Amino acid sequence: MSDPVFPRLALIGIGLIGASIALAACRSGAAGHVAIHSRTAKTLERAEELGLGDSYHADPADAVKDADCVILCIPVGASGTATEAIARHLKPGSTISDVGSVKASVIAQMALHLPADVHLVPAHPVAGTEYSGPDAGFAALFDNRWCILTPPPEADPAAVARLVDFWSRLGANVETMTAEHHDLVLAITSHVPHLIAYNIVGTAADLETVTQSEVMKFSAGGFRDFTRIAASDPTMWRDIFLNNREAVLEMLGRFSEDLTALQRLIRYGEGDKLYDLFARTREIRRGIIAAGQAIEAADLDRPHGKDDDEAG
Amino acid sequence: MSDPVFPRLALIGIGLIGASIALAACRSGAAGHVAIHSRTAKTLERAEELGLGDSYHADPADAVKDADCVILCIPVGASGTATEAIARHLKPGSTISDVGSVKASVIAQMALHLPADVHLVPAHPVAGTEYSGPDAGFAALFDNRWCILTPPPEADPAAVARLVDFWSRLGANVETMTAEHHDLVLAITSHVPHLIAYNIVGTAADLETVTQSEVMKFSAGGFRDFTRIAASDPTMWRDIFLNNREAVLEMLGRFSEDLTALQRLIRYGEGDKLYDLFARTREIRRGIIAAGQAIEAADLDRPHGKDDDEAG
Repeated sequence: MSDPVFPRLALIGIGLIGASIALAACRSGAAGHVAIHSRTAKTLERAEELGLGDSYHADPADAVKDADCVILCIPVGASGTATEAIARHLKPGSTISDVGSVKASVIAQMALHLPADVHLVPAHPVAGTEYSGPDAGFAALFDNRWCILTPPPEADPAAVARLVDFWSRLGANVETMTAEHHDLVLAITSHVPHLIAYNIVGTAADLETVTQSEVMKFSAGGFRDFTRIAASDPTMWRDIFLNNREAVLEMLGRFSEDLTALQRLIRYGEGDKLYDLFARTREIRRGIIAAGQAIEAADLDRPHGKDDDEAG
Repeated sequence: MSDPVFPRLALIGIGLIGASIALAACRSGAAGHVAIHSRTAKTLERAEELGLGDSYHADPADAVKDADCVILCIPVGASGTATEAIARHLKPGSTISDVGSVKASVIAQMALHLPADVHLVPAHPVAGTEYSGPDAGFAALFDNRWCILTPPPEADPAAVARLVDFWSRLGANVETMTAEHHDLVLAITSHVPHLIAYNIVGTAADLETVTQSEVMKFSAGGFRDFTRIAASDPTMWRDIFLNNREAVLEMLGRFSEDLTALQRLIRYGEGDKLYDLFARTREIRRGIIAAGQAIEAADLDRPHGKDDDEAG
């Protein structure tokens, strides 16, 4: 095992992502000492029971002391407050990063409090599950997943290179882009999909013509996938929508416009145009499979090993 | 193995569902002789190569001759034409059924042509994959899935009981409801979810600010699930939307109304209300898991065995 990228790593927040970083850093030796803080006493205690790190700190200032890298692993709406609490205690020359699904807003919140001698290199590992809390973490979460870094133009190249190295050793493929572009890309690949999943599950729950028990029973027809997405952490997702408002509203506007056009095709029975759209979207799935982000055989719960919930 | 429910079964159409019925009927002994028709010579040939049945017929009239049960396994828009082609050749006292994802329209199309001495018992197995064609079929497709029967009020109870028996032996759990109620239930649990999956994949493909390659690369954030749904058979789905128009438009109207309200919450930063919705939808996922239609550990492509594509 090669030397740790960061002899001392501090994790502020120890939910699904924080716990997975701790486990993956331990597995790979990418960090030496791992110091953990959670503002919730019970969570911190649980992290210690699980043996996720090397030291556990109720005070975030203690956790970040002498750390070569500090990573905020908290809902994006808490970035400013958390940074303020640790800013004065950060080691000169150290790196501070995060794992937020929104970047421009998080950078603005954090930069406000940071001293000039600390390197801010924001990151977003595009990985997760619908589970939350320290028990949900696992070392393989980032394997072969993308981690997007959004360093500001003035970022120190050496600090960026160290964080690239760190995430690579955690198993991720690293990509760099601007914060603004990240927020647009994620709005369409993640935020709007989550929003419409939350929305349809809510619509179904409110129906008076179809019972909730029927919705649950016959969910294998497609709805089931949406419920899984709509089971993700409510606080995290509230913060994402509030902090990536412009990009989400822009993509949502396009989605709604397209949906209205599609609705009209159905109303007027335009079969050929429906067919053309459905054939086109099939090609995109093929592209994703080719890009290696999805595999064809994927379900443990079916003997055939094929995805099984696409029926009408 | 007990006696076959149907000594002679005819399958009109041998795509994913037809082929799976053939294989499941063979596995369970629920049918004796299985006669297969496809209007596409190549598909019929492939079915024979795969050994899916006992006889293969280019003429549907030959396939249904002496059959105790005939099942249409074709896109719902073709139900009328297919029924017309076989109606005069059906055995008196035999059962005719289908597997369509829409019921009221299919019943109307079929009933028009059927002689009075044949029992019409429509069925919809809520199972499938995003693959199509005879090669996609597998015997376990219906195991522990729901099959919904929608017999008309005047249907012969003995004929209905035989079809319940048949589908049970194919592995399915059978439920009975009216065609109209079926169409409403499926509109929300399947048709609208498919429509919005098709729609967002289309929206993403048309963006000029985010490249298709970026959409594909970062699809693990949630979009990936939608592409799988949007890869389903275009002809089948075109027909579903055209034939369940009223229920789909009704459910889609509610979905859009709710989405507009959600969009407004984001625009005005109403965090508490967003949180409440997201917490509520999480409960529905728990209900579905409890109902046994989804399991918590479901992905072969992740060592941890957890769903893995929920990240922001």
